[in-house]
Amino acid sequence: MNKTIVLDKRPIGKPKMSDFKITDQEMPKERAGELLLKTTYISVDPYLRGRMSDAKSYIDPFKLNEPISSGIVAEVISATNDLYSKGDFVSGMLEWKEYQTANANAVYKVDGEKAPLSAYLGILGMTGLTAYLGLHQIGAPKKGETLVVSGAAGAVGSVVGQIGKILGLRVVGIAGTDEKVAMLKEDFGFDEGINYNTTENMAKAIAAACPKGVDIYFDNVGGEISDGVIVNINKFARMVICGAISLYNETQMPVGPRVQPFLVKNSALMQGFIVSNYADKFPEAIAQLASWLGEGKLTYKETIVDGFENTPQAFMDLFVGRNKGKMIVKV
Amino acid sequence: MNKTIVLDKRPIGKPKMSDFKITDQEMPKERAGELLLKTTYISVDPYLRGRMSDAKSYIDPFKLNEPISSGIVAEVISATNDLYSKGDFVSGMLEWKEYQTANANAVYKVDGEKAPLSAYLGILGMTGLTAYLGLHQIGAPKKGETLVVSGAAGAVGSVVGQIGKILGLRVVGIAGTDEKVAMLKEDFGFDEGINYNTTENMAKAIAAACPKGVDIYFDNVGGEISDGVIVNINKFARMVICGAISLYNETQMPVGPRVQPFLVKNSALMQGFIVSNYADKFPEAIAQLASWLGEGKLTYKETIVDGFENTPQAFMDLFVGRNKGKMIVKV
Repeated sequence: MNKTIVLDKRPIGKPKMSDFKITDQEMPKERAGELLLKTTYISVDPYLRGRMSDAKSYIDPFKLNEPISSGIVAEVISATNDLYSKGDFVSGMLEWKEYQTANANAVYKVDGEKAPLSAYLGILGMTGLTAYLGLHQIGAPKKGETLVVSGAAGAVGSVVGQIGKILGLRVVGIAGTDEKVAMLKEDFGFDEGINYNTTENMAKAIAAACPKGVDIYFDNVGGEISDGVIVNINKFARMVICGAISLYNETQMPVGPRVQPFLVKNSALMQGFIVSNYADKFPEAIAQLASWLGEGKLTYKETIVDGFENTPQAFMDLFVGRNKGKMIVKV
Repeated sequence: MNKTIVLDKRPIGKPKMSDFKITDQEMPKERAGELLLKTTYISVDPYLRGRMSDAKSYIDPFKLNEPISSGIVAEVISATNDLYSKGDFVSGMLEWKEYQTANANAVYKVDGEKAPLSAYLGILGMTGLTAYLGLHQIGAPKKGETLVVSGAAGAVGSVVGQIGKILGLRVVGIAGTDEKVAMLKEDFGFDEGINYNTTENMAKAIAAACPKGVDIYFDNVGGEISDGVIVNINKFARMVICGAISLYNETQMPVGPRVQPFLVKNSALMQGFIVSNYADKFPEAIAQLASWLGEGKLTYKETIVDGFENTPQAFMDLFVGRNKGKMIVKV
């Protein structure tokens, strides 16, 4: 049969295994113009938490008892479309199923010779695009400026920091273990790293790591970590609010220091970033990322979890930072 | 002698009369190229509170035992500069003194025939510029959008709302008394007004007044009023953070709901606005404001307090909303 993961209950707070259900569905059959696909890699991402709630947002909520979807790389099993052949690999927003059919124009071909297939879910996929476009479109980086990245060891953060270094910025990353902090400096070339779990005063730690203040803050986490950054921003600072993973599982409206006085004092900007708003810039961004990757200027980490049925657990592990770099399930 | 108001103590929380001192200083004498000026009108503005604290900000703090300065209109008593004559009026950032000298290039001539002299401290001065440039440069208004203004009956807010109507927006204002709310609609042409002091649930009141959601929020107050606005913003909303009068007298870091999740969900922008960053756009803005004023499309209110020695009280009255429109002291 065809294993499928559906949303069984809307999570309250932290998602639990019992919020998901693995069901057996019938094998699908492709219609004219469709592809029959076998899932190879599944991307799990923090933003999916938002879609599990029934709240108005930039993207529709998942429906109960229906499959969850995310970025997926799949193999073409059979194709009734001239542009695709059996054995091709494609990527797109697909469902958490072992097998599924898809319209040919809902996916795009990916080339396993040019880069590992999983990279199309990470550095050459949505996470790479998010890092590149968020930093450029809102962060507006200028050589010599200081960039702080939260969630720096994560899929997006680690790419943001590396791009920052390519562009000639001072780059400071915040992560949750000493091992990750070491990785930021050794593997990704960050100038400084801060372990928020062992740092008593984030504001002072940021000040020490950023002697010229903070010009750009690429924020993946929100919450108290960000409170320590904002007190150190420079005039005309830009804060890219890309995610708020520390707040996604809150059941009450999270409170913290008000940001408005810091924004006024510094003529600073804070802007929410959603990669899909910048679709017209995807080709240019992917070309640049692929070129840097080919030149060895960019590197990436993946945490690959084996087994389709472990997808919910891999997703939940994101919220305790069990991943280094992009979290991917291999089916 | 020459009465002068100096900062005697840095206010803690709400400024008190005892934070100021009126002293008698010697009559100044102009040097070559300088003007001897007699103060006519003094502008008191909420942002001056920030300069009374000894904190890093976009403008240097006032020094203790030295005169406070703000926007002032003054009469030229004698001039050693060919471009000015006795009897001319000038405006500039000057000190709270009855008489002072100033470099001729630190002030500019104002014409009492074209508009009342006090208008050069309001609608044709910094408050008009703040309203016009804040709304255009950050708010980026488009016809048919919904604009919410806090501190709407104040000097800046009342102009923002009127410009919004000229540009074809739906305009909703928030103020603190029924009288002010009536004024918003009757005198300034706002579509709706909300009295925050008699409204139990700001979020619901904003939702009711903005059936299509909020596209632009011009924020002069910060705090709980703004909390009710942000839950109603639309995708791509722009929030002009122009001031946070409700927070200026706080002695502890004010806390409130975190804004980051709202920014991410709506790809929304929040940016601190300081008019002096846009000095290159002043001539164009003043020309447009003067033209609208001449055509009768803009109107303004002033609260004029008599007597130089009442300047500190007029300033303090801003924080309890005792002004309608621009607060000005007539010397």
